[in-house]
Amino acid sequence: MIITKNFILKFALVAIVFTAFSCKRENVADTNNKSERATSEAHPKLILTAQGVKEIREQLGNIPIFDNTLKAVQDEIDAEIASGIETPIPVDYSGGYTHARHKRNFVVLQKAGVLYQILEDEKYAKYVKDMLMQYEEMYKTLPLHPKTRSYARGKLFWQCLNDSNWLVYVSQAYDCIYNYLSEEERNKLETNLFRPFADHISIDSPQFYQRVHNHSTWGNAAVGMIGLVMNDQELIDRALYGIKGVDLDKTAKDDDGGFLNKDGKAGFLANIEEPFSPDGYYNEGPYYQRYAMYPFLIFAEGLHNVRPDVKIFEYKEGVLLKSINALLNLSDADGDFFPLNDGQKGMSYYTSALVTAVDISYHFGDQDAGLLSIAKEQDRVLLDDSGLAVALGIKNGKEMHFEKKSINLSDGPNGTQGGVGILRNENLELVFKYAAQGSSHGHYDKLSYSLYEKGEEVIQDYGLARFVNIEQKGGGNYLKENKTWAKQTIAHNTVTQNETSHFNGKYEIGSQHHSVLNYFSSENEAVQVVSAKETNAYPGTEMLRTMAIIKDEDFEKPYMLDIMKIMSNKANQYDFPYYFFGQVLKTNFDYQTPKVQKALGTKNGYQHLFVEGSAKASNENSKFSWLHNRKFYTLTSITNNKDELFFTRIGANDPEFNLRRDPALLLRRKNTKNTLFVSTIESHGSYSPVTESAFNSNSNIQGLKVILDTVDYTAISITTVKGNTKLFITANTKASKEVIHNLKIDNKNYEWSGSYYFK
Amino acid sequence: MIITKNFILKFALVAIVFTAFSCKRENVADTNNKSERATSEAHPKLILTAQGVKEIREQLGNIPIFDNTLKAVQDEIDAEIASGIETPIPVDYSGGYTHARHKRNFVVLQKAGVLYQILEDEKYAKYVKDMLMQYEEMYKTLPLHPKTRSYARGKLFWQCLNDSNWLVYVSQAYDCIYNYLSEEERNKLETNLFRPFADHISIDSPQFYQRVHNHSTWGNAAVGMIGLVMNDQELIDRALYGIKGVDLDKTAKDDDGGFLNKDGKAGFLANIEEPFSPDGYYNEGPYYQRYAMYPFLIFAEGLHNVRPDVKIFEYKEGVLLKSINALLNLSDADGDFFPLNDGQKGMSYYTSALVTAVDISYHFGDQDAGLLSIAKEQDRVLLDDSGLAVALGIKNGKEMHFEKKSINLSDGPNGTQGGVGILRNENLELVFKYAAQGSSHGHYDKLSYSLYEKGEEVIQDYGLARFVNIEQKGGGNYLKENKTWAKQTIAHNTVTQNETSHFNGKYEIGSQHHSVLNYFSSENEAVQVVSAKETNAYPGTEMLRTMAIIKDEDFEKPYMLDIMKIMSNKANQYDFPYYFFGQVLKTNFDYQTPKVQKALGTKNGYQHLFVEGSAKASNENSKFSWLHNRKFYTLTSITNNKDELFFTRIGANDPEFNLRRDPALLLRRKNTKNTLFVSTIESHGSYSPVTESAFNSNSNIQGLKVILDTVDYTAISITTVKGNTKLFITANTKASKEVIHNLKIDNKNYEWSGSYYFK
Repeated sequence: MIITKNFILKFALVAIVFTAFSCKRENVADTNNKSERATSEAHPKLILTAQGVKEIREQLGNIPIFDNTLKAVQDEIDAEIASGIETPIPVDYSGGYTHARHKRNFVVLQKAGVLYQILEDEKYAKYVKDMLMQYEEMYKTLPLHPKTRSYARGKLFWQCLNDSNWLVYVSQAYDCIYNYLSEEERNKLETNLFRPFADHISIDSPQFYQRVHNHSTWGNAAVGMIGLVMNDQELIDRALYGIKGVDLDKTAKDDDGGFLNKDGKAGFLANIEEPFSPDGYYNEGPYYQRYAMYPFLIFAEGLHNVRPDVKIFEYKEGVLLKSINALLNLSDADGDFFPLNDGQKGMSYYTSALVTAVDISYHFGDQDAGLLSIAKEQDRVLLDDSGLAVALGIKNGKEMHFEKKSINLSDGPNGTQGGVGILRNENLELVFKYAAQGSSHGHYDKLSYSLYEKGEEVIQDYGLARFVNIEQKGGGNYLKENKTWAKQTIAHNTVTQNETSHFNGKYEIGSQHHSVLNYFSSENEAVQVVSAKETNAYPGTEMLRTMAIIKDEDFEKPYMLDIMKIMSNKANQYDFPYYFFGQVLKTNFDYQTPKVQKALGTKNGYQHLFVEGSAKASNENSKFSWLHNRKFYTLTSITNNKDELFFTRIGANDPEFNLRRDPALLLRRKNTKNTLFVSTIESHGSYSPVTESAFNSNSNIQGLKVILDTVDYTAISITTVKGNTKLFITANTKASKEVIHNLKIDNKNYEWSGSYYFK
Repeated sequence: MIITKNFILKFALVAIVFTAFSCKRENVADTNNKSERATSEAHPKLILTAQGVKEIREQLGNIPIFDNTLKAVQDEIDAEIASGIETPIPVDYSGGYTHARHKRNFVVLQKAGVLYQILEDEKYAKYVKDMLMQYEEMYKTLPLHPKTRSYARGKLFWQCLNDSNWLVYVSQAYDCIYNYLSEEERNKLETNLFRPFADHISIDSPQFYQRVHNHSTWGNAAVGMIGLVMNDQELIDRALYGIKGVDLDKTAKDDDGGFLNKDGKAGFLANIEEPFSPDGYYNEGPYYQRYAMYPFLIFAEGLHNVRPDVKIFEYKEGVLLKSINALLNLSDADGDFFPLNDGQKGMSYYTSALVTAVDISYHFGDQDAGLLSIAKEQDRVLLDDSGLAVALGIKNGKEMHFEKKSINLSDGPNGTQGGVGILRNENLELVFKYAAQGSSHGHYDKLSYSLYEKGEEVIQDYGLARFVNIEQKGGGNYLKENKTWAKQTIAHNTVTQNETSHFNGKYEIGSQHHSVLNYFSSENEAVQVVSAKETNAYPGTEMLRTMAIIKDEDFEKPYMLDIMKIMSNKANQYDFPYYFFGQVLKTNFDYQTPKVQKALGTKNGYQHLFVEGSAKASNENSKFSWLHNRKFYTLTSITNNKDELFFTRIGANDPEFNLRRDPALLLRRKNTKNTLFVSTIESHGSYSPVTESAFNSNSNIQGLKVILDTVDYTAISITTVKGNTKLFITANTKASKEVIHNLKIDNKNYEWSGSYYFK
């Protein structure tokens, strides 16, 4: 953390004042609460409701997916109860024993509470109570966690974030056994455990709590949920609006280099307002959205139940429910989220946070039957009203296939800061990123893309350099290679100019800018296009990238067309990588492989790339075919004979083997002002090691040509091996749907309306 | 091919003499045949039989897996018929168009023939006839195939091997439409196509035909099967016993460096005799056995039907059926064959040759219900009597799980030339190779192993350096790296001494030797052990390797124990690689990673290994953990502080990217005469990117120690992190089951009977 000393002193003063003030408020709240006792004592009320529990009990045994989930949870918790309660003194980072144990405990507590409510078996209530009492006994004298790496240390865990996770779950457990406890027991827990716990993660840790950031969302939800259960208006307000009277240093930064609180906004509502675009895109990307979703939705559910007057699901035109739809669409065919920015690969909508999201979206949204098919694949439901609704929907055979279509998601609180476009046709998925920086988890990769086939990566985005919760790798935390490699532009499928990253890799600059949509067109299923412009990544250089997925009768499958138009006020070197996977099969250029492998460069990520081969490109088209996952792929790229090509592999200057040894082909063009990078990627054919037969193993493209390239239009011809030629013309300006274009190329007139021409 | 000029001349003379002789024989055969006409005219008789077809027709519509197979074949052939007949003039290598077309044609012909018989629809007979007539028209003037790379060029294909494939299938088609044709048509086909075709691959190509080799087996079967259909005794004899009067140069070699015909043996029976051990192990390994199986079994089925007097399935104590069982056991949990020697990974028992094997084994063997479960997974059956039997078995619900157990398979015609031991416990499979050279497809890897978990490679055998039938990679043929890398000792998980391969990588030497079993013990399910000795790989050096899979209560899963004892008459350098997969997680030794990557050596495979890291080993135990396929693995190895460790990656001096870029950890011990390499590999825990939780991610072994090491015994202690110690003592001599051992270590007496002690 980079927090000025000044700030810490300032904060200490504020904190003292505030603590005094907050004591006073508590009394006021107490008085207020008395008039609401009738409602507030009807526990459970937070996630489970008294009425919901009644209905669940009536349906039990008759709702298979719910019954199975309940049975699994019961088996799990019975085993935990049998193995006894452990609340060790905290010592470890994530991945270590005490971390894992406390993490496990909060999950177990929440589930045991639910079992008590649904099954009415007091053993579960007693278990929750006993464990909570052990926590109460420990917590009242617990110092800060001994590990010091976090910018906001917790007490049970090394960071407040995990303490907040704990409270979000434990609030639910407490709500479930609220009426089982005596008033004295409740007072004991609230006074010695919950209230100080909520204070530690909020007023004691404003650098964590008082922000617009996924960490803060957890903090807000934790404070708010325990506030709802305790009927503590002050905590509820602190959750919704932030800590009263606390302002952070607006120039301070967190561990990841993000500003702590540039705008001074805080609280749960601000956390909804800021990161979600009107389309429901979350500015850090799907991996962190998935992480953030649980507190957003579970607190929202609690608010909906206890404080319907807040109308939380209607807030910002229903953006919470929209965001679930956006998130589901930000996944590949297997349900794995696209690893935009700092995303760990393999995270998918089978994660428990998405069970919450899908069930809540179904129940509190418009009962989209497509969600039921995902819920069915998830094979479990929330053990609450929404889970009951989903279980009944599935039981009644209402589910339909959840069809992911091409979709354009705007970024920014008002939807005006670029976005992410996803093109889908048959089994191909192209994810094109022209968004804003994505907060502290953003990467420097304007106009980058990744390409998938049937849920498998064809052209990969590297994702993050981290092994989340694997203790052996830097305690499971971000590795230094996340900054030196994963965030750098060269780690992505876009253009790097003069071996420097976009915005010089500086967050302060990057976070002020975003790319701008030129057009997105998915009306014609056979030709889907997204086009966007970036003018700030390299001052003086404009990049306009137009990417299409085209289904043409001369091809077995749809293919990708990529047109990157660069205009600069000076000559530069442009590097254009393709992070393919698999075995090099064939090239139409001669390459040399070095006896000794050296790094391609010295900084900005280049220090991590070994050069495995180098070549002069072919005049006209350079072709490269590879084999991966038993499928053939071919890249065809328009090149000139001054272009260079490099086969590279990640892993140089990686002294702890923190990076994956993945390959790329890199196209380099030197001393050039304005230029075009035009290429296609075809997926074609297949190979079976069982029949040992190769099918359609050669490219279907005879040649690509630039027919025209002006400020207003770029026209590319694609000629197939059958000899048929198609022309793709993209409007670089005036690209809106309504515009009628009239263009003469080689004495032939082309007239069309809309953003592009293809015939 | 390396055939002396002298030989070619000699052969030419022999051929002329023989042709004259063979003409005469034909007449004799004709006369003989007349008495058998009654039987022989009852076509089909070869694979389908008249009686079998009758039964199949009766059951049709009532045998789901058979019906489905038939339907799929019918759809396939109807589409082929619709697209017309193409028999192009041969020009291509494998992977090219004409190769693929003729390959497709023979499959189609065989299937169309079967359809004619089962469905009684003449359109199939006509299609077969028409295509055969086109072949007849082309073949009678067809020169040798224009591609010259093969040691035995075919006419339809670049090598006789593929011509033989053609005839094996087409014989079946001809049998099916035999009675549909007029005698004149049959004469035309037999005179201009089948007879010269059979002669070309046999008497015109003795270097291909007159050998004990999988190529020859195809040749023998081709000649024999057309002989059975044509009722041509001479061809049948030539198939069973080889070309009469032809002897090859016993010192000549083929393309792969194997002797053409060292022993002068030839013919189908010799090809059963030589390569199969009494346990049914095929000397080249499972990949080539799978390839060879089809001609072995399909010709055997034909012989069984037409010439029951040969008692082919009882030949050599029923070795053909035993070999099917051996082959099925030489596969991992997914049914993929272990890639011993030149084996391409991914080949599995789902290949069509194994449909033949499984169905024939079931029908002509003892109706093992386990085979039905494999047939069910194969999801298709042979469209003949054996397929009918399998379909009925499945229909009647007889199938049981085919359980693969630990198994020891002897090598050599008499089972005395070493072998392959497979240890299995829970999901772990260890394949230990102590076999003979494995003919020209053998690798130089005595006492090597590979380790699998649930069908995934943990410690890999590289397999071959070839992309079978992928034209872009050397025409789909063996790549030069097969010799420079894949066959070399350092490419395998065994010891390389002084950076030279076993037997100096020389086939002439390697093929004279084999390792010797010390013991194999699988009676105790918890402790399974295989131990073997190699004394010829490096003259003056003895290697005794004992490998165990041990299930111990202190461990989550079984673990592997590996004891390699080396005794030499001089000081050597020993290299001991571990070809792991995945991400380096943690070591207990400090390693340096070089800025610039160089090859580890200059020859014998070392030139292909880049050094990615190097270290001095720890005293006592060196530990290395990695993450692969969401599972954790740890190697613990007894080392001393003079040992060196290298992280390597395949790919140096690989100018065409023919090799996979796979990693290894290599342990090097220099200037040592006698030594022990002792290590364990644990698979432990798991990681889920969905829950982001790591479970049991650390090794469970605190330490390994050598307690005793004498000529007769080696004793290793294994201490777990719980502090429990187990002792493993292996008998290096007198290892038979019955021996009672009495041993004092540190004043404690150990007495046991059998090959090893573990407690």
